Amino acid sequence: MTRTTLTQNALAETARVDAAAVAPLPGSRKIFVEGSTPDIRVPFREISLSPTRTSGADEQNPPLLVYDTSGPYTDPEAEIDLRRGLAELRRDWIEARGDTEFLDGPTSEYGRRRANDPMLAHLRFELTRKPRRAREGKNVTQLHYARQGIITPEMEFIAIRENQKRQALSTQYSGSDEVERILGHQHAGQGFGARLPEEITPEFVRDEVAAGRAIIPCNINHPESEPMIIGRNFLVKINGNLGNSAVTSSIEDEVDKMTWGIRWGSDTIMDLSTGQNIHETREWIIRNAPVPIGTVPIYQALEKVNGVAEDLTWEVFRDTLIEQAEQGVDYFTIHAGVLLRYVPLTAKRTTGIVSRGGSIMAKWCLYHHRESFLYEHFEEICEICKRYDVAFSLGDGLRPGSVADANDEAQFAELETLGELTRIAWQHDVQVMIEGPGHVPMHLIKQNMDKQLAECDEAPFYTLGPLTTDIAPGYDHITSGIGAAMIGWYGCAMLCYVTPKEHLGLPNKDDVKTGIITYKIAAHAADLAKGHPAAQRRDNALSKARFEFRWEDQFNLGLDPDTAREYHDETLPKDSAKVAHFCSMCGPKFCSMKISQEVRDSVFKRSAADKHPADDPEAVKKGLKDQAQAFRDAGAQLYQEV
Amino acid sequence: MTRTTLTQNALAETARVDAAAVAPLPGSRKIFVEGSTPDIRVPFREISLSPTRTSGADEQNPPLLVYDTSGPYTDPEAEIDLRRGLAELRRDWIEARGDTEFLDGPTSEYGRRRANDPMLAHLRFELTRKPRRAREGKNVTQLHYARQGIITPEMEFIAIRENQKRQALSTQYSGSDEVERILGHQHAGQGFGARLPEEITPEFVRDEVAAGRAIIPCNINHPESEPMIIGRNFLVKINGNLGNSAVTSSIEDEVDKMTWGIRWGSDTIMDLSTGQNIHETREWIIRNAPVPIGTVPIYQALEKVNGVAEDLTWEVFRDTLIEQAEQGVDYFTIHAGVLLRYVPLTAKRTTGIVSRGGSIMAKWCLYHHRESFLYEHFEEICEICKRYDVAFSLGDGLRPGSVADANDEAQFAELETLGELTRIAWQHDVQVMIEGPGHVPMHLIKQNMDKQLAECDEAPFYTLGPLTTDIAPGYDHITSGIGAAMIGWYGCAMLCYVTPKEHLGLPNKDDVKTGIITYKIAAHAADLAKGHPAAQRRDNALSKARFEFRWEDQFNLGLDPDTAREYHDETLPKDSAKVAHFCSMCGPKFCSMKISQEVRDSVFKRSAADKHPADDPEAVKKGLKDQAQAFRDAGAQLYQEV
Repeated sequence: MTRTTLTQNALAETARVDAAAVAPLPGSRKIFVEGSTPDIRVPFREISLSPTRTSGADEQNPPLLVYDTSGPYTDPEAEIDLRRGLAELRRDWIEARGDTEFLDGPTSEYGRRRANDPMLAHLRFELTRKPRRAREGKNVTQLHYARQGIITPEMEFIAIRENQKRQALSTQYSGSDEVERILGHQHAGQGFGARLPEEITPEFVRDEVAAGRAIIPCNINHPESEPMIIGRNFLVKINGNLGNSAVTSSIEDEVDKMTWGIRWGSDTIMDLSTGQNIHETREWIIRNAPVPIGTVPIYQALEKVNGVAEDLTWEVFRDTLIEQAEQGVDYFTIHAGVLLRYVPLTAKRTTGIVSRGGSIMAKWCLYHHRESFLYEHFEEICEICKRYDVAFSLGDGLRPGSVADANDEAQFAELETLGELTRIAWQHDVQVMIEGPGHVPMHLIKQNMDKQLAECDEAPFYTLGPLTTDIAPGYDHITSGIGAAMIGWYGCAMLCYVTPKEHLGLPNKDDVKTGIITYKIAAHAADLAKGHPAAQRRDNALSKARFEFRWEDQFNLGLDPDTAREYHDETLPKDSAKVAHFCSMCGPKFCSMKISQEVRDSVFKRSAADKHPADDPEAVKKGLKDQAQAFRDAGAQLYQEV
Repeated sequence: MTRTTLTQNALAETARVDAAAVAPLPGSRKIFVEGSTPDIRVPFREISLSPTRTSGADEQNPPLLVYDTSGPYTDPEAEIDLRRGLAELRRDWIEARGDTEFLDGPTSEYGRRRANDPMLAHLRFELTRKPRRAREGKNVTQLHYARQGIITPEMEFIAIRENQKRQALSTQYSGSDEVERILGHQHAGQGFGARLPEEITPEFVRDEVAAGRAIIPCNINHPESEPMIIGRNFLVKINGNLGNSAVTSSIEDEVDKMTWGIRWGSDTIMDLSTGQNIHETREWIIRNAPVPIGTVPIYQALEKVNGVAEDLTWEVFRDTLIEQAEQGVDYFTIHAGVLLRYVPLTAKRTTGIVSRGGSIMAKWCLYHHRESFLYEHFEEICEICKRYDVAFSLGDGLRPGSVADANDEAQFAELETLGELTRIAWQHDVQVMIEGPGHVPMHLIKQNMDKQLAECDEAPFYTLGPLTTDIAPGYDHITSGIGAAMIGWYGCAMLCYVTPKEHLGLPNKDDVKTGIITYKIAAHAADLAKGHPAAQRRDNALSKARFEFRWEDQFNLGLDPDTAREYHDETLPKDSAKVAHFCSMCGPKFCSMKISQEVRDSVFKRSAADKHPADDPEAVKKGLKDQAQAFRDAGAQLYQEV
């Protein structure tokens, strides 16, 4: 059933980046904001905007800076060669800490075997880099540094990235007061206990990491990644999954999906491959990924025992952890909360155990009638993680797979165990986030968030959806996007995307994009609702462009300029329509935006003074009456030829 | 710019229903549940399901009844001829009340002119029916009847429809106790003051209508429509918009969109045409619509004065209302809440006035410096509405068009006026619902619902979205689907769909379907969260099918079986994969559903007695240990060849 592609056979020689994934987004350029030292260069996407045409001088619209997950791929200055991988942005920072050493090569048995297998030469990423590991007795996690009071370059990078230097930049580019009044509008949010400071400082980042409320997934063997943070006092993040399976997909397809996913905004990528050549696929992905990569190591471990769950052993699993840690995986999903006594709680469920990892471990536990090696060896896993700085994503193996099973005893029992494991990991200074459901109707979502915060001492929550109904296969990006937006608002730190193919098949590139955009919407809607101080500016800029019929700006400020433009052109393809002061919905005569602008312009003529007449109710009343006559006299045209 | 199609030129001769819109949905048949008299026949769609294969006898799965908006179009028994229109389901009910009379022809000046214009013959629906009107001094609204204590056939029809006869039918078809345990599971909901009775009786329907908490839009001139109700103590409804514009679209396209929209679940349709031949387009749509049709009469009135807002007069508008009422429009959007003094409140907004109706009225008010004829003649409008039973949909002309403008003074000032108008309409026994926003970030949505309930004395709320962010043109079905689900949960009675083309262009049929399915998801998610007693059964049935690898059942139980099947087939096209006990995501070895079923089957072998072993913790513990050995001995296969 495996689809063998020609490209795969000669991947090491032919791998090329997909051209569609590397062009800059329209109207955008990559800029860098420098930190306290020249090697801290934080990337942003700057969207240029056209001026607003007025009867007087044109009004300048400042460019908008947006958070940029796409790495060097959208930077025309960068040379992309998938076969060489990305530049090692963090190498010197890691080196400077002096607490790591290079290994001669992989220390995992499996890693060595794969490295030395001549049959894999055509698939293998040509490793030029030796794996790195903490020196004996050292702990190299960001949590460890944070608790020592150390602000790492990663933390400073993140502060700049999250803060979007909005204060400095809005001054630098500022247009008129009136423009800034519109762009700067921000509703007070409702944060449910989140603390969102006006300005994010490196010290704030350190403090949040030290408290366990945020994690920075950044394996020392993934120096290519641009530091990012997951925590509820920061921008809500999203994850995109990819991965080949036994049934379909090639390595190159998966690398393509990664570059495609980060182009549209995926903050991290999970490689969930379960098919052939998992090791090689992962290497290609990590070496070319500017975002953290997560995995579920039990998937690969199961492959190693030919898919027979009960044959899994701690030794196989341990070797897999080391293998992956030395490749550079930034976070591991570990289903250590599936305890033997919880399995019977799933027996009367509508959909039993739907997590792959959870069902594998349940089967293992039942077969051996004992607690899993994940649970029993959890401290040893911590020992491994702290030598590479791999963060935990404690898996919810008993998450509900249907609305009926939401918030049941099995799910919440496991969550309590995840809290227990969180505290153990923290004793080792290993970073932790907690995975969450799943299928949950809207009114039961908040209980998930509240319980997670309580049980896991505010460790970041990372949920799949949740899906708010089961009845829409083919549209589960939407059933889950609803739940994702809500739980993001309530405090979830990262949202794992769901594509339209969920429950039905493996996502192709279109599905990946649809899933990512849907989740960017959910994350941004959550940021707005929480009142993140940098969130509303983009909405304001886009709505201003929309109201002023700056069509190109409206497209370019959107999450997906290409689709917006394509939809517009379907009805009004002519270039002139891009500057038309109406659109296809109403045509020239009816357009409410147009009428509304006229109403505003005619009745509330801007006074020469700075003060807007609408600030003064008396002036407004008088103006209204005066202008009604003037408006009538002028016989304002509803439509001006373009 | 008008696109002239050949079909339009000979519409009266050639109009044919789109074949794709009339086939029954897969696995489904139309059934009717009879009321107290044989002429009350309530349509449902019955989805047949295949049995669950077990090691013993197959377990039967009862068919699922779902609410069906598609009318005769999915009934193979019905003969569809667009040129003749649908059968007049409600004719005898209306006739039997003895309070109406037939008119010789249209009493509106415009209606007569169009009827007598020979140039329109090729476009005209061949009217075989004379318009009907209340006899002098009579009031024919459902609210009027309800307040007299009369239960109309419409109300009984609705009770059966809403209630889904689930109690009777679940007995009739019942499978085993275990099947019913799974299908009957229902979470307690959170209704925010909604009262959702276990069984909906005709008297409950009457009482809700009498209290003004629900409306039954059913113009006596639209006897073709199947009665439905809009109120927060019933299933959440959705509306789909269609309508040609000055720029594009033909009559036949719009009729196609109507039949397409109701196929996928639109409970009402608004005809928002603003282009040519509005009158004729509407006639074709109403005569063929089994769902209520709403309009915004000011759009057509504006056409009549050549698009010059200030030339609008009460006389032109009044004639338009009568013209449309005599065609059978079931509800009118009337922007009577746009008061002169509110217009200045919009001057400092980011996006001013974005409602077309609102901006037209604002311009009129400013030009004439007086309150609008809608407001000043509101009681006369009530007089018209009660003679035909046209419901009000009081328009939110000052709704926010951007996140920045949400919940501002202009919006809420208008809402207060809508409350005042609601009470006036109720004095005339005219049914009322209230339109709501718009663009609102998540945390400001509930305030909209709460204020609407308070200001408008619990009249049903009908919102557009709301859109929870402005930054995703091309995906506003999703930005708004999030808000729609939430406000539906909070108590909104009907959700006006938004398509992917919102802000960009006119929706085509694909967009209409995407918008409808998205809003069905939102409405259903809201029903689940409110705890509607009929809501969860469909989720349960689908999840049971999913867990048991009944692929065809999973597709057919979904909101869009065609897309689900297509997505599945993209990865695993072979027919055998439809009965495979795995899917393309994991392949045969990894499937968590499969493993989970094995876990359940192996460890918790069903006892011969009815009692499930998981009911007894001691039995579970013992069983666990015993079965661990048995499980090991049996060496359960992970995958069985199909």
